[in-house]
Amino acid sequence: MTRIAILGATGYTALELVKILLRHPEAEIVAVTSRQEGNPPIATIHPSLHGRLDLSLEDLGPNEVASRAQCVFSCLPHGASATVIPRLLDSGCRVVDFSADYRLNSPEVYSEWYGEKHPDPGRLGKVVYGLPELFREQIVGATLVANPGCYPTSAILALAPLLKAKLIEPEGIIVDAKSGVSGAGRTLKLTTHYPECNESISAYNVGRHRHTPEIDQTLSTIAGTKVETVFTPHLTPMDRGILSTTYSRPTGDLTEEKLLEALREFYADEPFVRVIDHLPGTKDSAGTNYCDLTARIVRGRVITISCLDNLIKGASGAAVQNFNVMYGLPETTAL
Amino acid sequence: MTRIAILGATGYTALELVKILLRHPEAEIVAVTSRQEGNPPIATIHPSLHGRLDLSLEDLGPNEVASRAQCVFSCLPHGASATVIPRLLDSGCRVVDFSADYRLNSPEVYSEWYGEKHPDPGRLGKVVYGLPELFREQIVGATLVANPGCYPTSAILALAPLLKAKLIEPEGIIVDAKSGVSGAGRTLKLTTHYPECNESISAYNVGRHRHTPEIDQTLSTIAGTKVETVFTPHLTPMDRGILSTTYSRPTGDLTEEKLLEALREFYADEPFVRVIDHLPGTKDSAGTNYCDLTARIVRGRVITISCLDNLIKGASGAAVQNFNVMYGLPETTAL
Amino acid sequence: MTRIAILGATGYTALELVKILLRHPEAEIVAVTSRQEGNPPIATIHPSLHGRLDLSLEDLGPNEVASRAQCVFSCLPHGASATVIPRLLDSGCRVVDFSADYRLNSPEVYSEWYGEKHPDPGRLGKVVYGLPELFREQIVGATLVANPGCYPTSAILALAPLLKAKLIEPEGIIVDAKSGVSGAGRTLKLTTHYPECNESISAYNVGRHRHTPEIDQTLSTIAGTKVETVFTPHLTPMDRGILSTTYSRPTGDLTEEKLLEALREFYADEPFVRVIDHLPGTKDSAGTNYCDLTARIVRGRVITISCLDNLIKGASGAAVQNFNVMYGLPETTAL
Amino acid sequence: MTRIAILGATGYTALELVKILLRHPEAEIVAVTSRQEGNPPIATIHPSLHGRLDLSLEDLGPNEVASRAQCVFSCLPHGASATVIPRLLDSGCRVVDFSADYRLNSPEVYSEWYGEKHPDPGRLGKVVYGLPELFREQIVGATLVANPGCYPTSAILALAPLLKAKLIEPEGIIVDAKSGVSGAGRTLKLTTHYPECNESISAYNVGRHRHTPEIDQTLSTIAGTKVETVFTPHLTPMDRGILSTTYSRPTGDLTEEKLLEALREFYADEPFVRVIDHLPGTKDSAGTNYCDLTARIVRGRVITISCLDNLIKGASGAAVQNFNVMYGLPETTAL
Repeated sequence: MTRIAILGATGYTALELVKILLRHPEAEIVAVTSRQEGNPPIATIHPSLHGRLDLSLEDLGPNEVASRAQCVFSCLPHGASATVIPRLLDSGCRVVDFSADYRLNSPEVYSEWYGEKHPDPGRLGKVVYGLPELFREQIVGATLVANPGCYPTSAILALAPLLKAKLIEPEGIIVDAKSGVSGAGRTLKLTTHYPECNESISAYNVGRHRHTPEIDQTLSTIAGTKVETVFTPHLTPMDRGILSTTYSRPTGDLTEEKLLEALREFYADEPFVRVIDHLPGTKDSAGTNYCDLTARIVRGRVITISCLDNLIKGASGAAVQNFNVMYGLPETTAL
Repeated sequence: MTRIAILGATGYTALELVKILLRHPEAEIVAVTSRQEGNPPIATIHPSLHGRLDLSLEDLGPNEVASRAQCVFSCLPHGASATVIPRLLDSGCRVVDFSADYRLNSPEVYSEWYGEKHPDPGRLGKVVYGLPELFREQIVGATLVANPGCYPTSAILALAPLLKAKLIEPEGIIVDAKSGVSGAGRTLKLTTHYPECNESISAYNVGRHRHTPEIDQTLSTIAGTKVETVFTPHLTPMDRGILSTTYSRPTGDLTEEKLLEALREFYADEPFVRVIDHLPGTKDSAGTNYCDLTARIVRGRVITISCLDNLIKGASGAAVQNFNVMYGLPETTAL
Repeated sequence: MTRIAILGATGYTALELVKILLRHPEAEIVAVTSRQEGNPPIATIHPSLHGRLDLSLEDLGPNEVASRAQCVFSCLPHGASATVIPRLLDSGCRVVDFSADYRLNSPEVYSEWYGEKHPDPGRLGKVVYGLPELFREQIVGATLVANPGCYPTSAILALAPLLKAKLIEPEGIIVDAKSGVSGAGRTLKLTTHYPECNESISAYNVGRHRHTPEIDQTLSTIAGTKVETVFTPHLTPMDRGILSTTYSRPTGDLTEEKLLEALREFYADEPFVRVIDHLPGTKDSAGTNYCDLTARIVRGRVITISCLDNLIKGASGAAVQNFNVMYGLPETTAL
Repeated sequence: MTRIAILGATGYTALELVKILLRHPEAEIVAVTSRQEGNPPIATIHPSLHGRLDLSLEDLGPNEVASRAQCVFSCLPHGASATVIPRLLDSGCRVVDFSADYRLNSPEVYSEWYGEKHPDPGRLGKVVYGLPELFREQIVGATLVANPGCYPTSAILALAPLLKAKLIEPEGIIVDAKSGVSGAGRTLKLTTHYPECNESISAYNVGRHRHTPEIDQTLSTIAGTKVETVFTPHLTPMDRGILSTTYSRPTGDLTEEKLLEALREFYADEPFVRVIDHLPGTKDSAGTNYCDLTARIVRGRVITISCLDNLIKGASGAAVQNFNVMYGLPETTAL
């Protein structure tokens, strides 16, 4: 049994994480933190947890966290996360970081996209990107894992096998992604006010979404050459789910059968990637840790379509999958 | 005052058409047809029309329709529409056809995509495509207008100005489109059963949606060269609205300012195309005859984003706009 | 042509009001106010108004408003509205007030429910409650009209005819109401954050919603005896629409036919109340100024079901209806 | 380990049941039946089951089912269920019936509400109503359990404690219930076609919903006197969830504290009823087997508000809870 602390427990990813860990036989949540005043029971903030988790939110420093927990899931925002994590690691905690702080290898790229100096630049480039389907071996035994972003997971799982097998050109890849509103978090904003975003789809952050360098970096690693994608996220009127449609050019003669076969082989032993023949909807994987993936060839263009639940395979499910791998537990435990 | 008949009046485009025509000072609806048994009042089929239109659905042949009406809006399905329309034209009616029957110039292309022999092939190639922004002069005085499809309108209005000005390459254009569920019509299908499509986004008919040849044909005409787009429609959990995101390559040096300026100039005198700087959501144009349009350049790729209401600018509003142009009325009447 | 000012123009009722007035042949919007800094064009706040209303939001005092406008629609919050309106009236403006400030007759009741001293208590009891179906004669020529709340309109239109005809007991009336989220306004709140309220229905303010005294007061006036309803509002995951289900006891033998006939007679000449036999959904009246109304008798209990669009018949449509009555225009103009 | 068959496995309750049973350590699904032609894999009908349940739908008779399974969950429609179940029982199977066939005690009442003669009238009155919170002792060891309807569960759990303690009058109880669309099943109907029911709330089957006699019968049993409720269901634009608001009169002096205390005591040892102080939304219990329950007193009227997931606590979760009780397993297993 591992004692778990969750930092920044008032948001949606933390809520989903709690729900998964509550059914995990090897994890016990011992602390949930927040800067909320008055140490309210977590169930007053997340009413669905009433009667399920009898803990109060506390404003704890890293030492106090480390004295209670062995493994920490940080749901803090970027910037804040990398300020706390070094001290947790020094105290012997193992950490899964939900923020973007340890995903990028370069402090310069971080500054460019996040507009801030990185609080812990020395560690960048040494932290494993927590996508077990690609980097499982490095996650085993890791003390710090950078949990991937939701959009990157959907795009990378679709494109990595094709880039690795050199079936598609690394240039000119387009990722047109559609996400449910929970991806925007629990902080109040006009764009996620119900009467604004309900019954409306819109593109946002075109050309400047912060998940872009994360997609590029991982695909570049896999491809062995620089990949720069055109990434366009869209806000879709639903709670959860991401569907990413990618467009790329085949390197040579490529049939749909060969394409699907390549995906099927790549993920043959993966418990959470379902390569399917039909076109998926986000609802098929909602509430699960699956990524559904298929591909087509249309007029000489390779199209992949991948779906996942942004809060689970795109965040908290992936985090528990990483936890399982880190601790040598069966990878599907609680998922 | 023009006497109007609406054929196939049980669907959503007919309902929207009725609502627009009810406030049109120069149109009077005199007949609404359907094969529904028992001649029910239209308000029993469309409860929102209660107290607003006191007509019953009738199963009328073309002669009977022509004896009552001067102008006919056909909301019949493809195949059925082109069977009836020749007789209406012979009887002196003018017609706006909502179906795809007269949109394509070639009977062969029609057969290829619609899987049927065209019922009236001799007329193909002589019917104006009812997009006033591009073909206004041919619509004036026309006896038959092919009302465009909803997806094509959103894609063509975005791309035509750029192709015409040779700002983008005609090759390799991608149209990633997202539509509300009303676009799928009122016929019951599992894919549009509420618990199936609510809270889910999915791609459908990838590579084989019937709006593809219509987009290609019109863009080819405008570009003066063959255009073959990769068109991917997505079903989005909302009633109405289409957002089309297109990706293309600039022909030369092109700045975002120049790009937007080209769009602004092209549509300077158009009452229903709003070229905007911000990123639109479909809600901004829902319930209106506007198409909202903007563009960006990202990593050397031109992105256009266009939004419209699939039932209005994508169907019934466009039809009334065509009617206004055909009859020499102010184009914005009732819109 | 009447020159119109709209105070507090950043919210949803103001937006809807603008859209209605834009098609009103006898109204011209000359000023839109807000305390927003920098006098932004109203279309930057309401993107759907792009190209439709070329006015900027201004922070204007009552004198400046009165110097420009003849009629003022105040969409200010309660408390603020009654601070400004006296000065507008003194300057010769006529006013339709969307807030609750002039709806109640008693300053004490106002204080009890709104928790504040009324800013203009002397006027209470002398202002007409702007429900033309009940108080049309007093609205004609009025200088100030208190535009009703959305819930009260739906409840009162259903119950008033039955109380007036003494068909139901005035005691023990229950109003179980369900409203779309736009009724909660545009101010950001966790309860109307999309991922919180989407896919969820909840009761709120049970026993203490501020529309309670307004319903009671008007029904008491109609019934000629004190009416105290049990009013339970529910937040429903949709943009707009209110459905109110009321339960009451018949005073004597009452058949469903007689019940419906009483409603039909009462509203026989009303353009905006549709007494129907079938059970309505809120969608049937969405986007219109109609109230749909029907009734049933179940196990000796009278049930009424009424639907309306909370932003139109429940707010801005009613306001324009009042404006039309005040100015002697055809009551349905622009509606 | 118990071998399980699911009859009528193409609907939503069956899908939810499969998902729960897949994580049940003491249950193994061995057969799923349907009259679908061609024995399709269940994952082609329910794409979310891809890779999770490798069974095909079969059109099996009761003997074949009984030869494979020890316990049968029947998701067949009413009428069909009671035709098959006697033969399953004769063959030694134990059965949880999702249909209404064995819920009512009287064949006459069944005929009155369901419009058909009961296929197995002799068994009526001897089958336990599967609400463990009220009838746990009779469920232990039962061979046939009538799984309650979704609306009845929400209404009965709220009212039974108050009727039993004689805190409320058994006369004149109103149940105003709001349900998500999945409650209407997977059969295509215009009322549940997305563009019809999305963004709309409506009452339906007022005074004649078939759950009425089921609510009445159980409440009458508990109260020891005849109870006839006024039950009004509403179709709410969301996938899942029921919120029932009930109105009744207290028998004597009753405070809110005393009321809540009575509920808290009654359910003190129940794992799946959460008596709460705040007002619940259906989302708080969505995806769980919880029923959230609170109460208020408003103007001398007792109001209860209860929420549950219609597919889980209102159907498949309750069925597994019953299964656990029948087989002497920990009641919360897999829930």
